[in-house]
Amino acid sequence: MGNGTYPQYTKRYPLLVKNIMKRPLYYHPDDIAMVYRNDEGRYLRLTWRQWHERTCQLAHAMKTLGVEPGDRIATMALNHHWHMENIYATICSGAISHPINIRLSLEHMIYTINHGGDKVIFFDNDIKPLVEFIYDRIKDTVKAFVYMSDKPGLPETKIAPLYEYEELIKGQPKIYDWPDFDEDTNAVLYYTTGTTGLPKGALYTHRQVYLHCLHSVAIQGLTSRLPDDPPRPNQLVPLMIVPLFHIHAWGSPFSYVYSEARIVFPGKFTPENFCELVQTEKVNTTGMVPTMLAMIIEYPDIDKWDLSSLTNIGIGGGALPLGLKSKAEKLFPHMRAGSGYGMTETFAGVIGSLVTREMVDWPKEKIDQTLVKTGLAAVPAIEARVIDEKGNDIPHNNETIGEIVLRGHWIMEQYYKDPEKTAQVWRDGWFHTGDVAKIDEEGYMIIADRITDVIRSGSEMVPTVLLENLTGNAEFVLEATYVGVPDEKWGEIPMALVKKLPGATETEEDVLTFLQTTGVDTGKITKWMLPVYVAFVDDVPKTSVGKYDKIAIRKKIDEFMAKAKRVRLT
Amino acid sequence: MGNGTYPQYTKRYPLLVKNIMKRPLYYHPDDIAMVYRNDEGRYLRLTWRQWHERTCQLAHAMKTLGVEPGDRIATMALNHHWHMENIYATICSGAISHPINIRLSLEHMIYTINHGGDKVIFFDNDIKPLVEFIYDRIKDTVKAFVYMSDKPGLPETKIAPLYEYEELIKGQPKIYDWPDFDEDTNAVLYYTTGTTGLPKGALYTHRQVYLHCLHSVAIQGLTSRLPDDPPRPNQLVPLMIVPLFHIHAWGSPFSYVYSEARIVFPGKFTPENFCELVQTEKVNTTGMVPTMLAMIIEYPDIDKWDLSSLTNIGIGGGALPLGLKSKAEKLFPHMRAGSGYGMTETFAGVIGSLVTREMVDWPKEKIDQTLVKTGLAAVPAIEARVIDEKGNDIPHNNETIGEIVLRGHWIMEQYYKDPEKTAQVWRDGWFHTGDVAKIDEEGYMIIADRITDVIRSGSEMVPTVLLENLTGNAEFVLEATYVGVPDEKWGEIPMALVKKLPGATETEEDVLTFLQTTGVDTGKITKWMLPVYVAFVDDVPKTSVGKYDKIAIRKKIDEFMAKAKRVRLT
Repeated sequence: MGNGTYPQYTKRYPLLVKNIMKRPLYYHPDDIAMVYRNDEGRYLRLTWRQWHERTCQLAHAMKTLGVEPGDRIATMALNHHWHMENIYATICSGAISHPINIRLSLEHMIYTINHGGDKVIFFDNDIKPLVEFIYDRIKDTVKAFVYMSDKPGLPETKIAPLYEYEELIKGQPKIYDWPDFDEDTNAVLYYTTGTTGLPKGALYTHRQVYLHCLHSVAIQGLTSRLPDDPPRPNQLVPLMIVPLFHIHAWGSPFSYVYSEARIVFPGKFTPENFCELVQTEKVNTTGMVPTMLAMIIEYPDIDKWDLSSLTNIGIGGGALPLGLKSKAEKLFPHMRAGSGYGMTETFAGVIGSLVTREMVDWPKEKIDQTLVKTGLAAVPAIEARVIDEKGNDIPHNNETIGEIVLRGHWIMEQYYKDPEKTAQVWRDGWFHTGDVAKIDEEGYMIIADRITDVIRSGSEMVPTVLLENLTGNAEFVLEATYVGVPDEKWGEIPMALVKKLPGATETEEDVLTFLQTTGVDTGKITKWMLPVYVAFVDDVPKTSVGKYDKIAIRKKIDEFMAKAKRVRLT
Repeated sequence: MGNGTYPQYTKRYPLLVKNIMKRPLYYHPDDIAMVYRNDEGRYLRLTWRQWHERTCQLAHAMKTLGVEPGDRIATMALNHHWHMENIYATICSGAISHPINIRLSLEHMIYTINHGGDKVIFFDNDIKPLVEFIYDRIKDTVKAFVYMSDKPGLPETKIAPLYEYEELIKGQPKIYDWPDFDEDTNAVLYYTTGTTGLPKGALYTHRQVYLHCLHSVAIQGLTSRLPDDPPRPNQLVPLMIVPLFHIHAWGSPFSYVYSEARIVFPGKFTPENFCELVQTEKVNTTGMVPTMLAMIIEYPDIDKWDLSSLTNIGIGGGALPLGLKSKAEKLFPHMRAGSGYGMTETFAGVIGSLVTREMVDWPKEKIDQTLVKTGLAAVPAIEARVIDEKGNDIPHNNETIGEIVLRGHWIMEQYYKDPEKTAQVWRDGWFHTGDVAKIDEEGYMIIADRITDVIRSGSEMVPTVLLENLTGNAEFVLEATYVGVPDEKWGEIPMALVKKLPGATETEEDVLTFLQTTGVDTGKITKWMLPVYVAFVDDVPKTSVGKYDKIAIRKKIDEFMAKAKRVRLT
């Protein structure tokens, strides 16, 4: 694309990530952009102008490291302003940002770095031991390492060549002439968690990132408020807890910058850090996975803090059990958590439950029941269908299940350097998610399972996610998941793994009774779906993104079976 | 573009106008979409499903009239559901919607129809006499006419071939398979008002219309509320007063449909219709030109109506004088009118004043003074510069004036069938607006004049729009404009044409005194800009879009000079 020439320029005026930065820089350059609390409790505050100057300096510095357009530049880091500077400097100068998921297994992490061919890795002090541990296996790929820290000097380490971030950018020009290029240029690379094999690299373009950002902001403004809700704040003050290495925290670095939010970074997530930052920065919105919400609720000193500013909590990375939601709402009276669905290959926000205007007149219970459903598609940006094995749409009967297929503005284009796997998921013009859902009479999709996690009992499929959500509604349950255990007669029979609230005295039979009365008796599940075994456990194994790890559970199935009790309704 | 094929489909998943319709159809198909009050006071209400079915039927019917992709389909009509059906059926089936500006001179109107090559014209009963009047001059171009009315039967007329809208769509299938095509396909054609020659046709693509719509919705959600503002309504109920033949009412058919608004159509605009519809439909937002606002304020029965639902009024098509604004705010206590700038070639919403979050702490007077400034650019979608004759950016000193140049997502690509005029406005990659502005210390652009309307007094330029706005701030002034009158010594000297409030007793000298105290003494203008003549007039000539018509004024300059009084400060 030519730069600035009539007439191509305006019609194809490109959708580039660099333009997202222009809003705060133009409207509020001297407002605080980012707040970072370091491990020692010191606060750093940067205005948009300061942050952008640092980002420009970094872009210049990366050139001195030999970074060229199309190169993959990786981060192994917690959430902080350095990480944000890296994302923008990388993408806007034409390289590809690869946030490395530091919760992958070491083998998988090493694989993503070598497969991605990461030219530079930026890491912080918290992650340094991890980088050292894998260094010998990645040093042939990575040409330079950059250490991000607010303490001067380089640490003792074998990592080389190693540069100090602040030294690197010092003296660089504070203006960078962000280039124009085609909006279909690749911008970000995220690897899947690889629960069913090696991680795969999902590649997205500038156009996709920009359109996701813009639609997110538009939908934010169209979400309804219930009569008791506090007024929508004039400025978002988000606490960015979701790690930036999870699909760039669900795309929030882009939508928050576009919205001119004041972004607060916790560094390491702990319930205490969370409470301190919410109180001192008057944080009004955040997003997290259910596990983090559970940690906050269990934090014993929670009452010492003023968390009243926090009126919006988005939950993702797994459905929010109604029980956990009820507990959280006691803490955050104005919390309005929606559910959602997405995966590495779909960026974020493809299916979700939001407060819609007709809910204004609904009783709270009905609203809650609707918001915990997986949700509706992000129409018109995303098209979602649930199809049977012949490719036909399933009926909206809250019973038939089928596979979710998607297409739209931010569905991954391709797996990086893997045309074969790409062709497996892209069929007939639709991206096949491998997730199974039903659709209820109101048109809401409800995730039933991963295709690979479905328990096959006789000729029937037991939808484990439905059972998990139902079990999570019990007051005494903190976490619950289901796996199939081998059975001579049925092939597989369902076992529940349940983590109880501390101090709860309920028995395994109480789990079954709860499912009977709230599930079978209400028609949400059928009797043959009930678990045959219930195991009370101290912890349910989880993947690097906080989802129940069915593969790990199946590996230790004998161990869990030993703890399990065969249950029967009395 | 192929339909549905991997991998081209998702990366270039097209930005098409048909997708805008999907939101209300998916989320709220049975909600009321549109309310139309006909001339006899009967109300028609259509749900989104019903409206879309009619739109599908119309698309089928247009095929029977021989309409093909790329054809120009025109409307000569007031605002109503038929008009909206026509816009969507035309654009989404791949043809080009041309809303004919029925306030152009007859010669110009005929010219736009023949130049545009309009294949079909849809008109309603109000506009029928006009169509008959120009029929002989357009009948060779237009292949079919369609009469839109809720009364059965065709009227007596020479217009042929003539079809009745409701007859035409009756029996057509209620589903239409809206096609996929390239997002750069042309969608809409608007003609300029031709104040300086023949009207020119500004052509826009699907991508441009879609991105304007999406950005508008996003910005709407990011606009701040002041502490006393009522909460933002969960659903927009707009009264669509701005004629659809003005750049499709500033793009509102697109953003309102995307937002799932309940759109209220007044048919003919009268202050009484306006009040009735606001009261009965609880209209909460509307947009209009200053002239319409003045008409409403002058309406004697205004106090009989409950207009309390109307909390948002957008003013465009001309700056809103502070005086008129103050009067309007007495009527609409929660009114928050912003100013804006746009032209046929820029679609809508390129520069504007909105409530920003820092204003929350400002005194009302300062907010008002800021909101009447033309505004800030719609960054990042639109880039605006104000440049001097050498092409350099002017300083932000509230004094230097230069020409506004633009580029971005919805700046017109080309004048239809006119590469020569296109090349005149598109130079060096920027669209040259021909409008002159200054920029103040806060970075706000303030329109000073059309380049062609500037009064040249000696070697200085008198910025007439600045003078107009200043004069409009006087309590006794309803409208004011300025033209240059020939002068032997100075070349031109400024004359003010002023329409006073009914009953006002102020003199011509009072105008001058007001300008001295509120303009010269405050540093907003300099002494040599003061008018030498002031003429009190019954009406200021206006163009078809309600702007002061400098050409018409200059033609009758002797007439106005006869009414004018030479004024001098005492």
